[in-house]
Amino acid sequence: MNDSTVERTVTKVDAGQVSEVQDTIAVEEPCEIHLCGEAVAVTMRTPGNDLELAAGFLFTEGIVGAEDVATINHCGNSVVGGDEELHPENIVEVGLIPGRNPRRDVRRHFFASSSCGICGKASIEAIHVNTAMAADGPSISSMVLTSMMDQLEPRQNVFAATGGLHAAAIFNVAGELLVVREDVGRHNAVDKAIGYALIEECLPLDANVLIVSGRTSFEIVQKALVAQIPIVAGVSAASSLAVEFAAQSNMTLVGFLRDSKMNVYTGAERVIGK
Amino acid sequence: MNDSTVERTVTKVDAGQVSEVQDTIAVEEPCEIHLCGEAVAVTMRTPGNDLELAAGFLFTEGIVGAEDVATINHCGNSVVGGDEELHPENIVEVGLIPGRNPRRDVRRHFFASSSCGICGKASIEAIHVNTAMAADGPSISSMVLTSMMDQLEPRQNVFAATGGLHAAAIFNVAGELLVVREDVGRHNAVDKAIGYALIEECLPLDANVLIVSGRTSFEIVQKALVAQIPIVAGVSAASSLAVEFAAQSNMTLVGFLRDSKMNVYTGAERVIGK
Repeated sequence: MNDSTVERTVTKVDAGQVSEVQDTIAVEEPCEIHLCGEAVAVTMRTPGNDLELAAGFLFTEGIVGAEDVATINHCGNSVVGGDEELHPENIVEVGLIPGRNPRRDVRRHFFASSSCGICGKASIEAIHVNTAMAADGPSISSMVLTSMMDQLEPRQNVFAATGGLHAAAIFNVAGELLVVREDVGRHNAVDKAIGYALIEECLPLDANVLIVSGRTSFEIVQKALVAQIPIVAGVSAASSLAVEFAAQSNMTLVGFLRDSKMNVYTGAERVIGK
Repeated sequence: MNDSTVERTVTKVDAGQVSEVQDTIAVEEPCEIHLCGEAVAVTMRTPGNDLELAAGFLFTEGIVGAEDVATINHCGNSVVGGDEELHPENIVEVGLIPGRNPRRDVRRHFFASSSCGICGKASIEAIHVNTAMAADGPSISSMVLTSMMDQLEPRQNVFAATGGLHAAAIFNVAGELLVVREDVGRHNAVDKAIGYALIEECLPLDANVLIVSGRTSFEIVQKALVAQIPIVAGVSAASSLAVEFAAQSNMTLVGFLRDSKMNVYTGAERVIGK
């Protein structure tokens, strides 16, 4: 059930020519994230790397500290959803080290969450209370930045099969790949990549780069900052609030990273060999 | 402040050549949606058509009935967000006809919402309780379907300027455009388009087609069904849960609608002249 793709027969129409073909479709399933026995979020995600997703989500949303996480398991019973129980593989339970507590009021957090993100203004204030701005440095060569896209493409396995997924990858400033993750939700791909770094004890990522397929919104930049990632680059455009937040947070934000080109919105001083 | 785009100087790098250029960026701002004086959602959206967004969101999420809405205004004071008040233009208040009530428990609803959508399994059950499946018919010519993309492209004004927006459009089955809306959030674009139909009293949309740029996820198909739209088509892939939900709901779901081609995932009997 929890594979990343499913096969399905579809009716293909091409200039009036009709055929029945097998198509590979990206899986979207709900994942319920529990913290210390309480359900705190349901996210629609592509199954796979769910433990990273749960850890990354709780960390990048400021709910838990990276060093507070004790256990991450597929388990437990659904506590939301009414009569219909979720499949156990769609529930992840995160436990904290005894004596540690969530860092945000989860109820308030949920209220602030909405179907496309978070309460912008309020969160901008909140994140600057809880998270330092990005430190100065490091530098990165513009050629290394563009090389990351070349490395990313052949690794987007499910996207290549389905055309249906977002990708997020973390590199170091020398251009070496740490992790790449795919998901139907862009923020989930970012949470999985950062969750991997949390589990592998690679945090903070203050000498790293986050690359995302597609557009860069406020929440992507905010999640990167929580992991202290100073440089975020996307294949497409960034939103106004992403640019504003990156500027306020001493981060480098790059858009339209394609071939040998890019637009540097903020923090251009980190990009050398321009 | 509430325009759809802003101008900003960016550092453009092209094969080592550096220049400072003016770039047009899609605006992303929080919008707080109030129902009967209570804040029920914060969504990160592109300003513009906010009254449609609020009405469409509350309707497609099953919180209010279309015929229950009495007033929709920019007004009020922010009740979330802590010390920082939102700009009044970023708050929309929806009032109901005296004696009418919300159709869902808003607190429960919020819990089910997450940063990327809704509790899939639970919502699939819930939506089939509250909403009939799509009625049989109407038929649509495959040529008319592909012509919709040709009509949509020149109307994506902000996307053309910024490369940063999603679009949603509603057509009738003769291929005539009812409305097209753009937003940084795909679901917001859908809510704006359906909200327009609500305000203009065009509901139900049971002889109409919803076209979305990009991918089709579960929540897009679910929102369409609430408005009784029988046919949903996207430019890119659909997710597994979108396909599953469309199949269960007697809907026609089309993906990869480009040039004269498409993949019909479900409900192929509505597409004629294939």
